[in-house]
Amino acid sequence: MISVEEALAKTLNLVSELEVESVPLQEAAGRVLACDIVATRSQPPFASSAMDGYAVKGVEVEPYAMFSVIGEAAAGHGFSGTVGAGEAVRIFTGAPIPKGADYVIIQEDVAVRGKLITLDSEIENHDYVRPLGDDFAAGDRIQAPRVLRAGDIALAASMNAPTLQVYRRPIVALIATGDELVIPGEVPGPDQIIASNSFGLKAMLEEAGAQVRLLPIARDTKPSLTQAFTLAKSADLVVTIGGASVGDHDLVADVAAELGMERAFYKIAMRPGKPLMAGRVLDVPMVGLPGNPVSSMVCGQIFLVPMIRKMMGHPDVLPRELTAKSTQDMPANGPRAHYMRAIISEDGITPLLRQDSGLLTVLSAANALLIRAPHAGKIDAGAIVSYLPI
Amino acid sequence: MISVEEALAKTLNLVSELEVESVPLQEAAGRVLACDIVATRSQPPFASSAMDGYAVKGVEVEPYAMFSVIGEAAAGHGFSGTVGAGEAVRIFTGAPIPKGADYVIIQEDVAVRGKLITLDSEIENHDYVRPLGDDFAAGDRIQAPRVLRAGDIALAASMNAPTLQVYRRPIVALIATGDELVIPGEVPGPDQIIASNSFGLKAMLEEAGAQVRLLPIARDTKPSLTQAFTLAKSADLVVTIGGASVGDHDLVADVAAELGMERAFYKIAMRPGKPLMAGRVLDVPMVGLPGNPVSSMVCGQIFLVPMIRKMMGHPDVLPRELTAKSTQDMPANGPRAHYMRAIISEDGITPLLRQDSGLLTVLSAANALLIRAPHAGKIDAGAIVSYLPI
Repeated sequence: MISVEEALAKTLNLVSELEVESVPLQEAAGRVLACDIVATRSQPPFASSAMDGYAVKGVEVEPYAMFSVIGEAAAGHGFSGTVGAGEAVRIFTGAPIPKGADYVIIQEDVAVRGKLITLDSEIENHDYVRPLGDDFAAGDRIQAPRVLRAGDIALAASMNAPTLQVYRRPIVALIATGDELVIPGEVPGPDQIIASNSFGLKAMLEEAGAQVRLLPIARDTKPSLTQAFTLAKSADLVVTIGGASVGDHDLVADVAAELGMERAFYKIAMRPGKPLMAGRVLDVPMVGLPGNPVSSMVCGQIFLVPMIRKMMGHPDVLPRELTAKSTQDMPANGPRAHYMRAIISEDGITPLLRQDSGLLTVLSAANALLIRAPHAGKIDAGAIVSYLPI
Repeated sequence: MISVEEALAKTLNLVSELEVESVPLQEAAGRVLACDIVATRSQPPFASSAMDGYAVKGVEVEPYAMFSVIGEAAAGHGFSGTVGAGEAVRIFTGAPIPKGADYVIIQEDVAVRGKLITLDSEIENHDYVRPLGDDFAAGDRIQAPRVLRAGDIALAASMNAPTLQVYRRPIVALIATGDELVIPGEVPGPDQIIASNSFGLKAMLEEAGAQVRLLPIARDTKPSLTQAFTLAKSADLVVTIGGASVGDHDLVADVAAELGMERAFYKIAMRPGKPLMAGRVLDVPMVGLPGNPVSSMVCGQIFLVPMIRKMMGHPDVLPRELTAKSTQDMPANGPRAHYMRAIISEDGITPLLRQDSGLLTVLSAANALLIRAPHAGKIDAGAIVSYLPI
């Protein structure tokens, strides 16, 4: 058996960052920036008013000072003249500060009579001028790599970047295998069950950023599996579900080998989900997940999500583990890392009672995987433990 | 001025859960379940083997016991006969337990010679039988409302639910207003800037689940604004950006009033983003955001995201506030709730130095809004504060 960390290193080694593509700014959120965004202009591009009020010379500002209003500056329509001594320009938020002025009196501090304004007895001591380049200067950058969030998109727009260079999203082909499976909506035979893993994994991997193709269920025959692998040839990653064990009916490894897989078959010191197959089939990176529903979902979280993140160019390939207080005493762990289905709440984290790897009801009830390291000692309630949100 | 809570109650009152629609299981992740999913079958639908091994009668299991292998049960292909005394059936994970058997010896505990097996001296004391209905029984439910995550999708598949009833995603029309704006990629005039808020808000609201339509920039004229509102008539929510202040050039309120808006103009005790307009225009819920970049993004987070969540049927309309240790001393807060751009890390939460509402560089650098309540007292580094991840 190898450790989860070793298995992760090996599976991550199968994939690389995908090529870079241009996407319109409005489709770039959630993608990973591949090339720096360079501001082609400063923001604000001119000194501008931060408030509605009157632009004047700052040296003239004092209680009861009077100014004659000689014009108006609105956002998008500056005042073309120059503000002289004793003069003011009516100004609105975002408008350029007119020549000659360097101070904005907010309108709340002013009494207006016709074309004359008089300052109040108390005036806020703040110029309300946004200097040119206050936010950023031409040439400033948003540095790659970076996962683009809403605030970054707004900033990129402000820098006048209509298209961004990002890593391509990986295409993942999912192949559920097994004569016992039918797809939801079909009527199962007496010995059959409904395929569930592929649907859950599709949701998980799409949330991580992949484009997922659900291939038809492969039957437990060599032709059926060979056909499935062939259909998956154009994907960036092929994932099989089931058939990755050592049972006589688990043909996936045999068929993969016939298709040129340098076979890597791992028994990983983890619960759930001990067996995992990984390699390249028809020159496409391939991971074979166990068929047990919860095992396949947990292995998807631990191994596939980081692979997707690596292909998408994520600066942090491994999702960050969080910590919380355990609400329960827990016995010492055995030799395998245990990813316990658990509920995280304001009170801390509570492992669910039933941890059998066949129970999707328990996985659905969980919102976290509580991580117990191999040979971790027993702990008392209140101890800090690591978890991954799911 | 009204409090953030009052303003939230008023804006949330403008919208309701949208109608329910059917979506294929594979497109349901992230949506909110509107009707319970009822399992049409039990899982497993028969007692089944949890491991690869041999199915026997449990009463016969003891060290060195011998059995003759009379057949095979694979997943999808059960054994049709009955297991008698001294008999075993080769069985694989997921296969139905044959009639007459009630125990699976794992293959690791068995020596095989031809059609005879002999148990080892030490046998694991576990039957490896998954009872019928161990995961769920026919009639069990996934209860609505519920935000559907990957584990729920797998469980719904397993319950044989090919389509799910979910709330429709809201359509949001975004209208940026102002003569000073051009869209990214255009060449701005000397008094102009690039529209950024609408692009950032689109990313934010789409992440929250909305379908966002970016309308053309509306100019500071009544016909242009009227046209924009008319284009937005089929949306579930209209959001204007800019023009929601009290400046003489802010026409949005006037035009909205002409189009039948019961005007609600709020000065909210919050920083950034004091002014907010809300009501119904042409019978569509409408929110007018301030034009300042950071103000509009923060107001989007505080007011629009909960509205989206309510329309999508979220059981928790308000995103959950988290808590962390402040890494800094902070002075007492004024009368307005302050949503400070901050960075949350393993060390705690650190407000960024510059909190002016025009700085998108600061918003982009932040990953949290640190929340200071109105009149909150001064705190020391190490104190627990609330925040919203962004």
